[in-house]
Amino acid sequence: MRKLPFDKAKLESIIEKYPTPFHVYDAKGIRENAKRLKKAFSWNKGFREYFAVKAAPNPYLMKLLKEFDFGSDCSSMAELVLAEKVGNVGESIMFTSNDTPAEEFKKAKELGAIINFDDITHIDFANEACGGLTEVVCCRYNPGPLKGGNAIIGKPEEAKYGFTREQLFEGYAKLKALGCKRFGLHTMVASNELDPEYIIDTAKLLFSLVKEITETVGIEFEFVNIGGGIGIPYRPDQTAMSLERVGEGIKAGYEEIIVKNGLKPLKLYMECGRSITGPYGYLVSKVRHIKKTYRMYAGLDACMSNLMRPALYGAYHEIVVPGKENSGDTTTYDVTGSLCENNDKFAIGRVLPVLERGDIVVICDAGAHGHAMGFQYNGKLRSAELLLEEDGSVTQIRRAETLDDYFATLDFKGL
Amino acid sequence: MRKLPFDKAKLESIIEKYPTPFHVYDAKGIRENAKRLKKAFSWNKGFREYFAVKAAPNPYLMKLLKEFDFGSDCSSMAELVLAEKVGNVGESIMFTSNDTPAEEFKKAKELGAIINFDDITHIDFANEACGGLTEVVCCRYNPGPLKGGNAIIGKPEEAKYGFTREQLFEGYAKLKALGCKRFGLHTMVASNELDPEYIIDTAKLLFSLVKEITETVGIEFEFVNIGGGIGIPYRPDQTAMSLERVGEGIKAGYEEIIVKNGLKPLKLYMECGRSITGPYGYLVSKVRHIKKTYRMYAGLDACMSNLMRPALYGAYHEIVVPGKENSGDTTTYDVTGSLCENNDKFAIGRVLPVLERGDIVVICDAGAHGHAMGFQYNGKLRSAELLLEEDGSVTQIRRAETLDDYFATLDFKGL
Repeated sequence: MRKLPFDKAKLESIIEKYPTPFHVYDAKGIRENAKRLKKAFSWNKGFREYFAVKAAPNPYLMKLLKEFDFGSDCSSMAELVLAEKVGNVGESIMFTSNDTPAEEFKKAKELGAIINFDDITHIDFANEACGGLTEVVCCRYNPGPLKGGNAIIGKPEEAKYGFTREQLFEGYAKLKALGCKRFGLHTMVASNELDPEYIIDTAKLLFSLVKEITETVGIEFEFVNIGGGIGIPYRPDQTAMSLERVGEGIKAGYEEIIVKNGLKPLKLYMECGRSITGPYGYLVSKVRHIKKTYRMYAGLDACMSNLMRPALYGAYHEIVVPGKENSGDTTTYDVTGSLCENNDKFAIGRVLPVLERGDIVVICDAGAHGHAMGFQYNGKLRSAELLLEEDGSVTQIRRAETLDDYFATLDFKGL
Repeated sequence: MRKLPFDKAKLESIIEKYPTPFHVYDAKGIRENAKRLKKAFSWNKGFREYFAVKAAPNPYLMKLLKEFDFGSDCSSMAELVLAEKVGNVGESIMFTSNDTPAEEFKKAKELGAIINFDDITHIDFANEACGGLTEVVCCRYNPGPLKGGNAIIGKPEEAKYGFTREQLFEGYAKLKALGCKRFGLHTMVASNELDPEYIIDTAKLLFSLVKEITETVGIEFEFVNIGGGIGIPYRPDQTAMSLERVGEGIKAGYEEIIVKNGLKPLKLYMECGRSITGPYGYLVSKVRHIKKTYRMYAGLDACMSNLMRPALYGAYHEIVVPGKENSGDTTTYDVTGSLCENNDKFAIGRVLPVLERGDIVVICDAGAHGHAMGFQYNGKLRSAELLLEEDGSVTQIRRAETLDDYFATLDFKGL
């Protein structure tokens, strides 16, 4: 049974002020986890995490992560502006975009962001759009068939991202010719991966490539960005990836490939999202109806607009019923929302304590790709986000939507 | 090759005023289709279509459909308010909800809507919440294992919706005892179905049930609502469902079961969404980048935020390149958006005319469950909606989102 950072009484006091459903983030958990990540890579002088903003695009969470000098991994105009709002500018932004419009390249340059090119044609495109490139640049590598696929992100050769190997050599030569001075290399070939060896191998792949490109193109690399993709144990039978093992494994590869070959020291960058906030966000909801037909249903006041992963991917999320954790009296439920889509279910056939109207239900691991992915389909509104501080205080860091928000882009006057 | 209601020159003139991407709806196509539906059921005196608002929750489209006396099928507070805004009140609203909160029952009653109960426990719940029920009520039937599954909506016995057969008898007796006077029966067991016999069989199932419940409970039925679920031919090898065949088939069932048994005449209601606006909405976009790595990519300025179906369901949507329809020069593309998700692809391995930056690309059948399902993941904004009138004039019926909309629920002052 998952241990929560609040009990039933605490939740009830929060709900008095902020009605369900809402997302609540555990500041203490996020901070301890951030420290753990930094410690695992403390052997690397320039190590830096760029938080993948799309996982939880809330400026208050980004500001919390800034305490640990985490930068922002951005891939859209809105995310660049969010980074700017929290004071992450200059090289605190990694702009890793694809199919990028001119105005986003311009904004990224204006902010002094590190531009990570997704395609060789974007070099000229950005150069023209921006009237010149920045001093520091990066290219995204897609290893294609040279790297086995990750279960979630799929086979690299079927992914829309990045340069081929040949294009990388051509691309860096072009960037050098255009006057760029400082270089990085990036790849992102995993999503929600739990095997540390996959991440370690990815880092080694990049180290070897740094060596080759350095020798061939005659440039020096300043950093590698090994991407994100560190998974979290959504299911009770899964184990969190050992950050210590990842850190050590990458260190060994670094010493073997970079140090032994006398290459310039490299800063190691990551752009994790899910593993940074995922386990520390909870969707808090109440039981609205219990229904018995061909199956037993517990209908919540939350729906897939608040957390799409179960409906979208059939993803598993732990469900805890505070105050009934130790109840021996259980039933098997489909836990549903009220959206008019039959896949609006948080769990199918889940054994839970016997539920009744008004029970508080907590859906775990909703801290990344949770609120962020919500839609307004069927006229559903997205919920508030709260931050639970270490001293027990709670701050609303995003208000719930209202009908006025839903109607904001409509002008009824013409009807 | 799909025939569009506009040519390249027309689109270019629209784009001058409204930049891509946008959804444009063809008023003429919607009107002709609405007439066709009414004609196919003209044999039934009280026939009425309640447009499933969730398919395209735009009040200007709802108003257009009101020309044909189409009501509104609503399942949330926002949809009830939309219906109210276009003047669809009273029995012009069918409130078909599930896991319904008290305030929505109250609003539905206040508007005089037909309340369609999803669960037997909701009768008492609504009765208490509203201080009494309305005169006219309906129950949603879930036939469970008594009806074979539809490919999209799945097996009825695994669906969260509706009453079991036993519960129906109990439910109507309860409603009768509570003083309700006028009764309807509803089911919805299909989604995007192209076989008319499935819809006809569903209607017959309801007619037989009307007979049985009438005899057992001693109430008279005023209508049956056979739900929606009429599909559209997304793929070139599919054929539109013959509305004429559906109309005739249901008429034969009606005569055999209702007329021959001397039952009171029934009004036939439907709640189609997809088949009403789906084929008459187009997502218009421009090519932003052409990329060649392990595959050929055409990157658009639209992304899955504008149309989720291909990314979500792997759904097929026809793609037309105006001005290049007859080009013999083709290439196989993955047609992508810029969202930082590898499944953000409108088509995979699609043979299209050779594309270049700036080409206009039209994605067909985006008129239902298109704009409505859009999210803002990765900081993407939802696009405008336009209505193309029969005289060639174009009205903006929803503006595009701005960054201010995206940030509306955030208060940056506390940062």
